[in-house]
Amino acid sequence: MTPFADRLIARTRALGHPLCVGLDPFPERIPALFGPAGSVAAAEAFFAAVIARLAGRVAAVKPQIGLFEPWGAAGVAAVERLCAQAQAAGLLVILDAKRGDIGTTAQGYARACLGPDPAFAADCVTVNPYMGLDTLEPFFAAAEQTAKGVAVLVRTSNPGARDFQDLDAGGAPVWARVAEALQPAMDRLRGLAGFSSLMIVAGATWPQEARTLRALLGQALFLVPGYGAQGGAAGDAVAGFVTGPAGLEGGLVSSSRAILYPPGAHDTAAGWEQAFDSALAAATAELSAAVRSA
Amino acid sequence: MTPFADRLIARTRALGHPLCVGLDPFPERIPALFGPAGSVAAAEAFFAAVIARLAGRVAAVKPQIGLFEPWGAAGVAAVERLCAQAQAAGLLVILDAKRGDIGTTAQGYARACLGPDPAFAADCVTVNPYMGLDTLEPFFAAAEQTAKGVAVLVRTSNPGARDFQDLDAGGAPVWARVAEALQPAMDRLRGLAGFSSLMIVAGATWPQEARTLRALLGQALFLVPGYGAQGGAAGDAVAGFVTGPAGLEGGLVSSSRAILYPPGAHDTAAGWEQAFDSALAAATAELSAAVRSA
Repeated sequence: MTPFADRLIARTRALGHPLCVGLDPFPERIPALFGPAGSVAAAEAFFAAVIARLAGRVAAVKPQIGLFEPWGAAGVAAVERLCAQAQAAGLLVILDAKRGDIGTTAQGYARACLGPDPAFAADCVTVNPYMGLDTLEPFFAAAEQTAKGVAVLVRTSNPGARDFQDLDAGGAPVWARVAEALQPAMDRLRGLAGFSSLMIVAGATWPQEARTLRALLGQALFLVPGYGAQGGAAGDAVAGFVTGPAGLEGGLVSSSRAILYPPGAHDTAAGWEQAFDSALAAATAELSAAVRSA
Repeated sequence: MTPFADRLIARTRALGHPLCVGLDPFPERIPALFGPAGSVAAAEAFFAAVIARLAGRVAAVKPQIGLFEPWGAAGVAAVERLCAQAQAAGLLVILDAKRGDIGTTAQGYARACLGPDPAFAADCVTVNPYMGLDTLEPFFAAAEQTAKGVAVLVRTSNPGARDFQDLDAGGAPVWARVAEALQPAMDRLRGLAGFSSLMIVAGATWPQEARTLRALLGQALFLVPGYGAQGGAAGDAVAGFVTGPAGLEGGLVSSSRAILYPPGAHDTAAGWEQAFDSALAAATAELSAAVRSA
């Protein structure tokens, strides 16, 4: 199978933009036409419609399992089906789970998300590095085996990212130490075109940090959350990207609420489709312009 | 409702030991008498039997959701039922999930684990601090509202804990900075007897760090993993405890494999029960002696 890094770059080059749409259920914002308010059935029907509209228009979707978990096993079952549906629609699936645990448990999480024979049809899973490299190793090993990806939190997009990620650890912040420590795994997961299937999460709200991270890790794919609703601008979101054959490239920029929940009532499927397509077109146009501005 | 901290201390005082048993499915080690090899049904039947034997003998169980996740939604459904069963048997449930994410997603995880109206009947959930205090706040707020607990990873028990937790951040390691930053939330979640419902995870393999953590956070409950199979000794496991009316107290010491999977074949329910009870008795005796040695 083609390595995750190459599958991702091929898609973003073909589309001309790096947009990834987060699948984040906010039950009170899902239009009533998809089902009973607050139900997991409505969320699933909504995201099935979202996936159908995204097919061929974006490289990837990012289901946020934490927002399905309040429905318990029923929510997790919906995530399973939506992942499979997104892959069948030709979309890459970045399962946003922020997993991390010691050896045997990390193996369990890695098997669930990356396989072989995974519970979730994911191409990549987000993981948390706090517990150390040995807790990330099962994810790296699984990704090597199945040609999938792992996205490690390095510098996140929230205000509290400063609390511990920014602590000065001997002349460099903790997040830079984490980035440095990832280099050997970055090499192991290097794809055919030079990018690694080891992604790093680098928030759109911190463009200076993104440039520093790119200098540290030239072959990293960036997963950039926080574009749109969280306040990151398109130019900042691609600050860590590099010049490729068709403009800036080197990762995905994720937006959720600004696209999923455009303003307005949306009483009919046609009305919702139009509003959704407009929000999607606005985001892809803005990001396309940002990557061409290189 | 009585705060989690007080419920925990009342139970460990009454029992005379701080043992918590981790519910970690290792499918190949579950005796065949519980069901088809590798099936989630066998794991659920096994842990139902484990919970029945633990009732009245330990304060708490710690289901490890990461080891159920390879079964996908079916595994998560089993965790839901086992949590409910453990609470019904009078056991505290520490859901070992190592969750952590930005605001709205953290709210989702907090609602799923701590409620109100949670998907999992848990009394406490483990969380990862890397993303910052704002990502922990939804868990603290939910725990305040529902009189439950939150266990924050501070110094874990695995070898790789050194990689980032031990980085020198201006004269103190990152884990000590995390501990210091937790003090305000520690106060907010303080129970009636002085201990806080904010637990900290402090590995049994690092007794010196446990003593430093106790000096920093006098009212913290400790969740000490790594006792038994991971190599931590009973005396080391309670190194961060303090002297109470009935010996050392101030947290839970968790063991999983050494109790769940005692040596031998176990072809019959009676044989398995005997082996399980022996392993449980050995661990409780060792920990009882350790807390009385104060």
